[in-house]
Amino acid sequence: MIKFDKAGVAQWQSTSLVMRGLRVRISPPAQMASAVINVGSEILTGDIQNTNFSFLAQKLEEEGIEVGVQITVGDRVKDISKFLKDLLRDYWMVVITGGLGPTEDDVTKEAIAEATGLPLIRHRDALRIIRERLTEKGRKMLPSQEKMGMLPKGSIPIPNRVGLAPGIFLEWEGRKIIALPGVPEEIIEMWREVRKYLSKERNVFYRHRVLRVWGLPEAEINEKLKDLLIKSDPKIILTTTSSGVDIRIKSRGGSPSIAESKLEEVEEEVKKRLGDYVYSADTNMENVVGMLLKLKGKTISVAESCTGGLVSKKLTNVPGSSAYFIGGMVTYSNQSKKELLGVAEETLLEKGAVSEEVCSEMAKNVRKKFNSHLGASVTGIAGPTGGTPHKPVGLVFTGLSDGNKVWVEKHIFSGNRDQVREKASQAVLDMVRRYLLEVLR
Amino acid sequence: MIKFDKAGVAQWQSTSLVMRGLRVRISPPAQMASAVINVGSEILTGDIQNTNFSFLAQKLEEEGIEVGVQITVGDRVKDISKFLKDLLRDYWMVVITGGLGPTEDDVTKEAIAEATGLPLIRHRDALRIIRERLTEKGRKMLPSQEKMGMLPKGSIPIPNRVGLAPGIFLEWEGRKIIALPGVPEEIIEMWREVRKYLSKERNVFYRHRVLRVWGLPEAEINEKLKDLLIKSDPKIILTTTSSGVDIRIKSRGGSPSIAESKLEEVEEEVKKRLGDYVYSADTNMENVVGMLLKLKGKTISVAESCTGGLVSKKLTNVPGSSAYFIGGMVTYSNQSKKELLGVAEETLLEKGAVSEEVCSEMAKNVRKKFNSHLGASVTGIAGPTGGTPHKPVGLVFTGLSDGNKVWVEKHIFSGNRDQVREKASQAVLDMVRRYLLEVLR
Repeated sequence: MIKFDKAGVAQWQSTSLVMRGLRVRISPPAQMASAVINVGSEILTGDIQNTNFSFLAQKLEEEGIEVGVQITVGDRVKDISKFLKDLLRDYWMVVITGGLGPTEDDVTKEAIAEATGLPLIRHRDALRIIRERLTEKGRKMLPSQEKMGMLPKGSIPIPNRVGLAPGIFLEWEGRKIIALPGVPEEIIEMWREVRKYLSKERNVFYRHRVLRVWGLPEAEINEKLKDLLIKSDPKIILTTTSSGVDIRIKSRGGSPSIAESKLEEVEEEVKKRLGDYVYSADTNMENVVGMLLKLKGKTISVAESCTGGLVSKKLTNVPGSSAYFIGGMVTYSNQSKKELLGVAEETLLEKGAVSEEVCSEMAKNVRKKFNSHLGASVTGIAGPTGGTPHKPVGLVFTGLSDGNKVWVEKHIFSGNRDQVREKASQAVLDMVRRYLLEVLR
Repeated sequence: MIKFDKAGVAQWQSTSLVMRGLRVRISPPAQMASAVINVGSEILTGDIQNTNFSFLAQKLEEEGIEVGVQITVGDRVKDISKFLKDLLRDYWMVVITGGLGPTEDDVTKEAIAEATGLPLIRHRDALRIIRERLTEKGRKMLPSQEKMGMLPKGSIPIPNRVGLAPGIFLEWEGRKIIALPGVPEEIIEMWREVRKYLSKERNVFYRHRVLRVWGLPEAEINEKLKDLLIKSDPKIILTTTSSGVDIRIKSRGGSPSIAESKLEEVEEEVKKRLGDYVYSADTNMENVVGMLLKLKGKTISVAESCTGGLVSKKLTNVPGSSAYFIGGMVTYSNQSKKELLGVAEETLLEKGAVSEEVCSEMAKNVRKKFNSHLGASVTGIAGPTGGTPHKPVGLVFTGLSDGNKVWVEKHIFSGNRDQVREKASQAVLDMVRRYLLEVLR
């Protein structure tokens, strides 16, 4: 059993185990952490990404459970049971995904039986759960489906509301084994049950939040948050992607409200130091821009060159975006910039398609064409070719017009074609955000 | 040492080891396969996807080396060395990524030393490689960087042309250890060296290819390829995504040409049975459409509603797409469909924005507006809201006009907003493909 001290540090209380009369065959785990086994041959061939693991890792972290190791194995009983046995020696909890279905290849339960020495039994509750699911669908249980109701003795079945095979909770020798199916949608749905189960014996609570930053490089953020970054609680982790820098803050406390207030304190401090560069907490740029447009009752249209439709695509990722997004133009050729967007031929000839002037005309004209409150624009060189010493790959102009004024910003982005396009789309959406917050200068 | 029999099955020849006078402390591996250890705390927290592993798994498979297990651990010497030791007992080769850098957290080499009992030594060749890299950049070696030149005794350093830290080849007790840095770009670059090294002792060769299919559900493909799907060489695996169905074919043989000809034979058979539904081998839809447009000297423009720019974005993913992509319009509102694209008000009122008639007008009009050879269009209901009993979420029309004729296709796609949008974009691009192949009816 696990207790947490006042500081929220987990303590293994082996004595309580003995007092409760359990036979202690294995010693307390060396690490108060969990391990994950993903059973899946298609992950081992590199054909699919192990998204089940990243989901579980994040969810376990939310429950305050560190993941010490992750193992992917194929569907061989011997391999699964070997690693399971090994991990049960060192870890407090092992979560297994995959291999619970009705086919020959589904051998996870056999492996649990082999690793723990528990027999597989026809589990009445599990069979009932499967039968109920089948009845809902107007079907009868096939003999092959009965296999899904065979569970290691002592298991508590976890209902599966998406697929058929129930999951497993199993307490064994002071360890916890949780087995879930391999289908991502089923794991996501079943996690709610797992969460309830885990929270029963918890007295430390965790909160985390991701503040997203655009326009400030990681090194500068690092400098500004130096004193906060060395602390372990709340802990701050920086990650740079093409969409900006993510500041992940994690806090813990003896109650949810203590954890939350510790988190908020640091969150406020980070926001104070970084100001408008923080564009969101826990959401992406298009959601923020969409919310602000809705809030201010403004509509927008977009003229794109190098991003080729990505900015419009992002804005319309948001359900309900038709409330503020009127439309977009992808003017990829000079001809279309001229004929459809009305960019002056002389500007294109004198300044070139990738120029402050063309970007400015694009923003002004798209706004008029679509009759929207705002017009946004992007023109640049995404690469890999098309760069010159004067106008290198990565040179991008982003623009915004509100009918009274036009703003144009110049950027030089690093990275490959995809990265330059992603950064360019973030940059123009960030201009819209700052405009709506009245901090665009 | 490993030999392959005539059928290409790997055989462990333990006698040859003894004959070569090596001390055999461990028995031949139970499985003639490899294991991969990814060292990375940021993978364990679920913050980043383990793309290094999927890269390595695919590359190892190309070399004909199966991956039996994959383990992710944090940067603790004890954990890494424990699992490494364990895997060296059972596997012929272990590939490790991450932890080769100059910081305190980089402990992979210490772990290799601990697992093998080999001392870390100042490796002259490794230090030379690092010094050369630094000289290229006009820098001198810092004392902290010398750590990267400390390698387990007997290692062959692998030059790193992207970063600084060299990788490691190490033969130990009949096993191979390969250590690479954790940065994806460095692994990709260094794989060329690893490949050379691995190919030295190979006498079985593998080939694989992915045929991509649009417009035919997996169940039907399954039915058509039933007899081929049960064979183990060449092996065929089907995977369904929002972009279609992937048919992965893998073959092997005693020489590259034998493997290739076996692959081609099955590839031709699959293509014969599935016909025009196969849209590519080893590449995506926008590349195929781009190649065909270039080949036929045709230009294109796109009018999008529910896909919100995704079709244009995909077409412009391809470098050099300005040769055939003139531009696009995202007419998200009725107003913009009318004013900018010239769709008749009565069509919009009578038939609705999501209708065969509006889709047809969009294709015809965008073609004229942009003055391109072809005009493509999409209109539909991506969801999650906006559906009616008559026009449900997932209803999508795709259209194509060449100035003489207009084609419109009706689809009902399943899935969430993202999936419906992805499928809609594939569907319209596939119409362009079939038009250019002269099979659009």
